[in-house]
Amino acid sequence: MQSNKDEKTYRVRKLEITDKNKGFMELLQQLTVCGSVSDDEFQKRFEELRSYGDDHVICVIEDTSSSKIVATGSVFLEKKFIRSCGKVGHIEDVVVDSSARGMQLGKKVVSFLADHACLMGCYKVILDCSVDNKAFYEKCGFKEKEIQMVKYFI
Amino acid sequence: MQSNKDEKTYRVRKLEITDKNKGFMELLQQLTVCGSVSDDEFQKRFEELRSYGDDHVICVIEDTSSSKIVATGSVFLEKKFIRSCGKVGHIEDVVVDSSARGMQLGKKVVSFLADHACLMGCYKVILDCSVDNKAFYEKCGFKEKEIQMVKYFI
Repeated sequence: MQSNKDEKTYRVRKLEITDKNKGFMELLQQLTVCGSVSDDEFQKRFEELRSYGDDHVICVIEDTSSSKIVATGSVFLEKKFIRSCGKVGHIEDVVVDSSARGMQLGKKVVSFLADHACLMGCYKVILDCSVDNKAFYEKCGFKEKEIQMVKYFI
Repeated sequence: MQSNKDEKTYRVRKLEITDKNKGFMELLQQLTVCGSVSDDEFQKRFEELRSYGDDHVICVIEDTSSSKIVATGSVFLEKKFIRSCGKVGHIEDVVVDSSARGMQLGKKVVSFLADHACLMGCYKVILDCSVDNKAFYEKCGFKEKEIQMVKYFI
């Protein structure tokens, strides 16, 4: 007997505005505090990010059997003067739905984002993660380098 | 007898296009590889970053007695869906000229950048640094949080 999981198909693509109705914000809530985001606020932020074109990309994976977003992550390109006016990709907000783990979806998201940064001419891609997630990112081809420091305003 | 250092005055301000002639790129070379950047390339990147307005700010400190840029750092604002469509400031490329250390110029740059992020409504400001620089950033009000992972493309 086949399990339901085997019957599922996953589509890796960029975020679409209708993804708010497919559980995108609920998925982000598994990562951190999301607060309340109205449809208008979502649309405004979506349009703002879309205006950056290839400089800011959000990847999602949709479970096409349920039309739910089950994984996501974003990358934005920072433009520098160093490294001959080089660019660096910053990966942020990677999360996989708790019911969809163990199927390499996180790895697919990170590959999508890193490939995008590479294609856009970045000399490196970086991210910050907890020590617990270090092994996962090593499997994605990353190496530990520095430490992240933070200052909270609220 | 007064030392030369006491006679110097320092001006904290945003990067200007003429700073390429005031040693801005040579200063960045003390941080990492800069490669060759022509005047045209510098102008193009400068204009590109300026078009981001308050979303990307480069701070410099000019030694007005020598018209040399002796410290710099940048901050850019990342727009998110989490935290009620919140914003995060990312501080990058902080460096103080080797001849101008010990005068709190680095702290002035970091304060300038963190204050900007706060004023623009960011809920936090983050940066990555080596373990050796941890104590400096702690003096600037930062705390260690995560680890930075990197993947190089070249």
